[in-house]
Parts: sequence; C-alpha cells; structure tokens
Amino acid sequence: MTNFTYQIPTKIIFGKDEHKNTGKIISEFGIKKVLLHYGSGSIKRNGCYDDVVNSLKEYNIEYTELSGVEPNPKVSLVRKGVEICKKEGIQLILAVGGGSVIDSAKAIGFSALCDNDPWDYFEGIAKPSRAIPVGVVLTLSASGSEMSSSCVITNDELGLKRGCGTELNRPLFSILNPELTYTVDKYQTACGIVDIMMHTLERYMTNIGSASPTDDIAAAIVKSTMKNGVKALENPNDYEARAALMWNGTLSHNGLTGLGRDYFMISHQIEHEISGMYDRISHGAGLAIVFPAWCKWAYKYDIPRFLAFAKDIMEVEDKATDEETILFAIDKLIAFFKSIGMPTSLADADIADESKFEEMAEKCTRYGKRVLGGYINYGVKEIVEILNIAK
Amino acid sequence: MTNFTYQIPTKIIFGKDEHKNTGKIISEFGIKKVLLHYGSGSIKRNGCYDDVVNSLKEYNIEYTELSGVEPNPKVSLVRKGVEICKKEGIQLILAVGGGSVIDSAKAIGFSALCDNDPWDYFEGIAKPSRAIPVGVVLTLSASGSEMSSSCVITNDELGLKRGCGTELNRPLFSILNPELTYTVDKYQTACGIVDIMMHTLERYMTNIGSASPTDDIAAAIVKSTMKNGVKALENPNDYEARAALMWNGTLSHNGLTGLGRDYFMISHQIEHEISGMYDRISHGAGLAIVFPAWCKWAYKYDIPRFLAFAKDIMEVEDKATDEETILFAIDKLIAFFKSIGMPTSLADADIADESKFEEMAEKCTRYGKRVLGGYINYGVKEIVEILNIAK
Repeated sequence: MTNFTYQIPTKIIFGKDEHKNTGKIISEFGIKKVLLHYGSGSIKRNGCYDDVVNSLKEYNIEYTELSGVEPNPKVSLVRKGVEICKKEGIQLILAVGGGSVIDSAKAIGFSALCDNDPWDYFEGIAKPSRAIPVGVVLTLSASGSEMSSSCVITNDELGLKRGCGTELNRPLFSILNPELTYTVDKYQTACGIVDIMMHTLERYMTNIGSASPTDDIAAAIVKSTMKNGVKALENPNDYEARAALMWNGTLSHNGLTGLGRDYFMISHQIEHEISGMYDRISHGAGLAIVFPAWCKWAYKYDIPRFLAFAKDIMEVEDKATDEETILFAIDKLIAFFKSIGMPTSLADADIADESKFEEMAEKCTRYGKRVLGGYINYGVKEIVEILNIAK
Repeated sequence: MTNFTYQIPTKIIFGKDEHKNTGKIISEFGIKKVLLHYGSGSIKRNGCYDDVVNSLKEYNIEYTELSGVEPNPKVSLVRKGVEICKKEGIQLILAVGGGSVIDSAKAIGFSALCDNDPWDYFEGIAKPSRAIPVGVVLTLSASGSEMSSSCVITNDELGLKRGCGTELNRPLFSILNPELTYTVDKYQTACGIVDIMMHTLERYMTNIGSASPTDDIAAAIVKSTMKNGVKALENPNDYEARAALMWNGTLSHNGLTGLGRDYFMISHQIEHEISGMYDRISHGAGLAIVFPAWCKWAYKYDIPRFLAFAKDIMEVEDKATDEETILFAIDKLIAFFKSIGMPTSLADADIADESKFEEMAEKCTRYGKRVLGGYINYGVKEIVEILNIAK
C-alpha cells in the first residue's frame, strides 16, 4: 500500500425526494444566485426541472439558465457559461444532469475565476487556482463526477477530448435521488454500469501488488454494480438496484477504490480518443470496447494482479494454467458486457477505419510517452496494438 | 436503503513516516499554538513523541503538553485540558495516541468553547455548538475516532461511561502511519481487531433488510480485518497487515459501513456499562464478550439478516436449518475471538458477580427504554437476559 492523502469535502444528500430540497440546501450555504446548467431537456420531461426550480423559488434563490450540454460536453458551451458567470456574479453553478453536465459546470466554475481560455486548462497550459463552487442534482449513475476531482471536456474544433483534474473540482454538494434515474433507458443504463465498473477496475489493475482493504472494497463495488445493474435493466423502477448503482457510481470515482494504489486510467485515455473522434460513441460503450482489449494486451505484465481480478472479481475458478484462468475471466467480462447490450469491439460500434488508429494513438500520446498502468512506457506502437486487438 | 447525508471534512494523511510531517501539516492550516495531548508515555518509548515534537519545533508551532490520558479516558482530565485551553488560547488539540487520547481531545475541544461542565455534554444536558479543532497522530488501530463523529468519556466519580456524538467531533486532520502500531502488544492488537469488527457489524446487523453496496463494503472490511488481524498478530512488523488494520479501523467508524442503514450500537452501550464498572476491561475485550451474547439473544428477531451475516461475513455454508446456520456462524465468531486471545464470557474476564447485572442494566437504561437494534424496545429485563447469556 502506497502513501496517500484523502479528503473529500463534498456533502452527499442521498435518497428519495431529496432533489426537492435543492433550494433549502443551497440557502444553507448562504448562496443567493446560481447558474442552472442542464442538457437537452430530459429533466423537463421527467419532472425534475420543475421540482428543482420550485425549490429554488421557495428559498428565493435567483437563477439564470444555461441548457444545451451535449454528451461529450463542448468547450464552446463552457465559454458561454463563463461569460454569464462573469456578467451576473454567479455564486454557484447548479448542474442538474449526469457527468456531461457536471463536467461542463466544473469547467465553467474554474474558468470563470481564472484568466485563461477554458481549453488551456485541458491542454495543461494553465492550472486552475480557484473556482466558483458546483452543486449537483444527479440524474444518471455513471461518471462519478458528483464527488470526483476530475472533469473531461471535448474541443469541438480540434476533435480532442481532454481531462483536467484538480481538488477544486469536488462539488460543494451532490443530491443523489435514485428515483431520478428510473427514466434512463436501457442503453444509457448499461453505459453507466460499464463506466462505474471501469472507474474501479482501472484503479484495481495497476502494478502495486495487493492493497487490503482497498482491493476488497473495489471487488465488492464491482460485483454489486454488476448484480444490481442486471436488476435495474430488468426492472427500471427497482429502487434498491438504482440506489446501489448510484452509490457505487459515486464511490467508484471519488478515490476510495484506489487508495494506496497507483492510478493511470489508460483505457479511459484511449477511449477519449475514440469518442473524441466518433461523437456518437458513448463513453461507457467505448470503454466496453477498449478495456477487454487492454486486458488481453496487458495481462502478461502482471499475472498475479490479473489472477486477483479473475478470482476475486470475476469469480472464476482455477483453470489448467494461470493464463487460461485470466483469459477465461476476460471472456466472462466480455460476455457480461454483451449481455447488457454493450458493443465489445470497434466493429460492433461500426468503426472499421483502421487508418484512423495511428491518428488516435498520436493524439493520445501527443505529450510524449505516458506510463501505461505502471507496467510499461508506451507510445503510438502500443496503442495501435491495443486498438488492433479491439477491432 | 434509507436516505442519508454523508460529509467528512477530515483530511487523512496515510503512510510511512507521515507523522514526521506533523508540524508542516499543522502550519498549512495556519495554526500556531497547540495542546499536545497523550497518554502514559508509550509514545516516548517508541520514538513517536520525539518525531512529532521535532516537527512542531521545525515549523515554530508552540505547544503545551497534557499527558496522562488513561484507557477509558476520564472527565477529570478533560476538565484540566479545558482550563489550559482557556488560559493559553490553544488553536488545536493534537492527540497523539489511540481512541482514548483522541476522545479526550475531542471532549476538551468542544468543552473549551462552550459554557457547561464537560460531563453535561455526555449526560445530554447540553449540546456542543462549536469546538477547538482536533488533529490526530494515530498510534493504535481500533476506535476509528480519527475520522468519526463520536467520543466516549468515563466519569470517574460516578462510574459511568457515556458518548457524545456531534459532527464537530470529526478531526481536522488525522495522520495514519501504520509503522507506529508495530509496538502495540498482542492483547491490545486483538482488542483493536474486535473493536474494528464491531463498528461495522453493529451497523450491519440492524433491521433494514439488505443495502447494497453498503453491506458488501461492510463484509469486505470485516473479512479484511480478520485476515490481516491474524497476520499482524503473527508478525507485528508486517506493514501491509498493520496498514490494513489501520485503514479498516478508520473506515469502520466514519459512517461508510452503515450508510442507508439504521444505527444503534447496542453492544457498545452494554459494554460501556461493563468497562465503566470494571476499569480493567478493555473496550475491545468487553465487546468480544457482549456481542456474541447479543447475537444469540437477538437473531430470532431477524433470521434473514443473521443469515446474511452467517454466509457473507462468516462464510458459513448452509446447515440443516437457518437457525443452525446462524448459531454455527456465531460459534465461529466466538472461536475467532478465542483464537486471538480474547475473553468471550464474563467468566473469562473474572466477572462473576451476577448481582451487578441489574445495576449495569439500570445504568444502561437510565434515560428510559431505548431501541435495541431496531428489533425491540428494551429495558432492564432484556439487558439482564443478554448479560446472563454472556456469563
């Protein structure tokens, strides 16, 4: 177990009807003026918008609306949000939605109080030093952005998707009502299941050996996500299943499941190049394609770790050789992804253009070689190999 | 899963050598003057005291010492601490030790800024409204006080042990270096193992049905504690085992393992009467006596929950009847406690005086009947029954 620091000031308010207390919760922080940030309007169809707005009015919270956040949220909208914040003296950005809306809100939050163009923070040209706080009403179990330090934005002009991690990104509060996810369709629910699993598995599969209790908690969360994911797909209004997905989503990406381990998120990095280039690909679907390919490519570097994955998470019994056990576990994971309707190859997602592999690999390594899961330095060659396995 | 609120501002700094950064960490909070609070001097024998004091000096942190905290920390020493804080304008109470020292520091912290006598807060006559913050250098894996909202103090004149829970009790920071526990002897290590297990099990065994992922995380933590507890007893300098115990101890009592469940801590309440009356009994040892007795008494009220305990935590396979499975699991728990050198009956702890049972039960219920694990209201009769099973 490596040394670590752990501190999450985000206040979680979890449970039925809690989004109806949004105004009360904001007023308890002494905040009077918010930017109400959301997506395409699904929150209007399911009643969430009305509940939140009524609560804001009840507590005399002034709000300006900025809607239109798309999946793979765009830096162009972030720039609009920054303008509004500067002009209107916004004290809190209230993100009502899933990871895209929250990430857009985070980017607006720190860009509005710093001097650079928002994209500079995602290219590593500048670092955020302060931020307007973000509050969340979560409507999708997936990204974990509601308690995480990360934030991912797409540059629509450059076709690039980049992250910016800072402790300033941790929301001030997040309201988690699992009922708000009843209307999430099967495909997006499945994408969320994959994303949640990956946030934990990408921390689990690094070359630190074992780290108890972190690994045991990680295994518990992945298995709970798979079990309850299937239940939520079978019965979208199963409160306990939706609650488990929501809380697993939050815990999977707030840091808990990687404490005392290294942390590289290689499959996330490769996936960002795919959904950065092919906007129709959901992040979770992209991960279902990339991660098994990465596993097949990487397991030889750390047999003990991949064996732990096989036995403790995928619950595979010993085969004739360790390698067979591991490959069986990877296949079991692929079968699970298929069973919940996810693509597990680039072909499944209608990406046949191999000539793009090199371009994606170059974009992914544009800042020079990075460390790949602690096992090896990698460059264009290695990423192209992984993409070829994912064909 | 019931609705919940979850927020823990405590900053955790975990790992090797981190206690040598105590002065740096304190100075980052802008704090200049601390009360250095510790126990009988074991921190002087293992070098921890020197490391901490040198670090305070390096960062020009002024400190006043108050040592002498005993196991089952006394309100008389809390009163002394309050006097010092008021006289010297202390900005932080630095607890270097285990749960007793931290709890004493917490009681000093809120009593010094409020007007009542410290014991009033433990009798429920007054509630803390603000507090001098507490910082921790942890030397014992057990109480979880390093990240918890609770605090337990003994009134040496009245022979009473009482808790005071408030969010003000969460430490500002806690430095967790597992190496500092290498010198903890086998008996105290075992008492810590029981205490850690109980903090999670007392949350797990309440009448809420199942709550995933909370229950899965709870099971992971209890099993990790048992496995690594045995390793730490075999090899006191096993860093990974000591690290697992330390982090399990913190996670077991910060709230995580009970989110979405009710929370009563009945065995803790009964145990407080035992160690309140018999000062020689360590809290962990007292719990090893009370909890199995409580299980034998309570399981009939919630067969499904005790079956989950039997299968998911004690890993018992199905017996002929559910009742047999549960009783087998309780016996397995008792056998585990015995194997690590814990008493599992009042007789084992040389408490033979049954005439005291009624007195303990009366003290425990002096504020009227309480709820027992959600299953039943209980009074003197029920507690005497449990104590009789524990004979």
